[in-house]
Amino acid sequence: MTKAQLFEQITQKKSYLCVGLDTDIQKIPSHLFSEKDPIFEFNRQIIDATHSFTVAYKPNIAFYEAHGAKGWESLQKTLEYIPKECFTIADAKRGDIGNTSGLYARAFFDKNSSGLDFDSVTVAPYMGEDSVKPFLEFPDKWVILLALTSNAGSKDFQNLVVNHETPLFEEVIRKSQEWATDEQLMYVVGATKADMITHIRTLVPEHFLLVPGVGAQGGSLAEVSKYGMNTQCGLLVNSSRGIIYASTEKDFAQKAATEAQKIQAEMAMYLEKYL
Amino acid sequence: MTKAQLFEQITQKKSYLCVGLDTDIQKIPSHLFSEKDPIFEFNRQIIDATHSFTVAYKPNIAFYEAHGAKGWESLQKTLEYIPKECFTIADAKRGDIGNTSGLYARAFFDKNSSGLDFDSVTVAPYMGEDSVKPFLEFPDKWVILLALTSNAGSKDFQNLVVNHETPLFEEVIRKSQEWATDEQLMYVVGATKADMITHIRTLVPEHFLLVPGVGAQGGSLAEVSKYGMNTQCGLLVNSSRGIIYASTEKDFAQKAATEAQKIQAEMAMYLEKYL
Repeated sequence: MTKAQLFEQITQKKSYLCVGLDTDIQKIPSHLFSEKDPIFEFNRQIIDATHSFTVAYKPNIAFYEAHGAKGWESLQKTLEYIPKECFTIADAKRGDIGNTSGLYARAFFDKNSSGLDFDSVTVAPYMGEDSVKPFLEFPDKWVILLALTSNAGSKDFQNLVVNHETPLFEEVIRKSQEWATDEQLMYVVGATKADMITHIRTLVPEHFLLVPGVGAQGGSLAEVSKYGMNTQCGLLVNSSRGIIYASTEKDFAQKAATEAQKIQAEMAMYLEKYL
Repeated sequence: MTKAQLFEQITQKKSYLCVGLDTDIQKIPSHLFSEKDPIFEFNRQIIDATHSFTVAYKPNIAFYEAHGAKGWESLQKTLEYIPKECFTIADAKRGDIGNTSGLYARAFFDKNSSGLDFDSVTVAPYMGEDSVKPFLEFPDKWVILLALTSNAGSKDFQNLVVNHETPLFEEVIRKSQEWATDEQLMYVVGATKADMITHIRTLVPEHFLLVPGVGAQGGSLAEVSKYGMNTQCGLLVNSSRGIIYASTEKDFAQKAATEAQKIQAEMAMYLEKYL
């Protein structure tokens, strides 16, 4: 998917919501256990209920991989079920030496090889340029590079001052812009404070940012939108648990729709105001 | 597997060789394509031919994941086939926020969940403490943390000077020692130069180091052994392509055995000399 196509969807749906499919067998409603593939069935109903409020879906690969080969089948069925207009993110945090990253790229981008055909994959930057480049060789596919994550451990290394100047995550942003343009590269930015988002926007005015942690992890959608939006929106804001586990009863899909719609309505307002 | 058990195997086999199972469907001998699962069949014959010279096997997960669910089945069969005395490494370079890393830990350590039961997994440090800790909750399972990798891109971030003092990879080593002992933590160290290995040994005198890139990537086994060995050996030296693709003909397993034995003989000499 191109950046223009993504922006078109955002304006049509008046939303920049990404729904995280962190589908945990221990958290889904028990009535689904009679289904042949409960994880896929849960996802199917969540997608049906939320896709009109949602521009992107982000399966968290760990939740599928935890079930081995069977989990990969649930993932493949889920990906095939997501409506074609939606942007898809393999939240995999991969990254290895060049030839190995090439194989990971095939795993997530090459349907003939793996059965999967995501639009994008999240990549960890620690191993540098040759660990990222193989993912960029697929046309219209995206790398979403970890810059500043939203977890507690993000402070351990990402905020260390490097080269006597800037935090490591800024150096990741600076350096990686030599590898690809904003037509193929996004960043994971778990920043929800006004001054931080404003600052990051000065580093990458044009790029899309994938912002996790609004909702369950407590970030503010209002701040992110006010200080993070650019002329093509430039934001994908993720919510996982707050939507998909809004209810753990039979009405889970309906409640997920309600939550997604609530966020979409707020986003419509911010698009109106800041775009 | 405990550290004592690993050391016992090293002394018995007079080897600290790790064979990397980077099994690429495009590189295996063509006569295997008539097999039901050519990747597993290749691995089976490599394992049969090399296990008496080898203390560890390291399937590179990307090579299996590139084939989706089918690849995970080949991986599971391979892991089950590796002799029980051998240390097994899921070379997966995972790492995510706490609850997600917990799921990756289940993927590689919890047979009941995923069908896989590795002894260890390689983990990327970028997301910090809570991305590493969930892997450490499994008794007698190991984290092999990326410190200094051997690829070109390793210089992009790992060598940046942080806190006005040391390169990032040293800070990764320093900080991570707060999270686990040398009974559960190893490091990937792609260092093959004498002064660098000597220096790293001052930082982690007791830990095992997984050293990639000896062989095809051109590192020197002699230097690594002389400057890296500690009183319990403390080294696992990996070779992938140099062994498993020593021949691409029908004699591939026999040639792999020859290469593995050659390295083992050299290692026996270093163990005699430096242990």
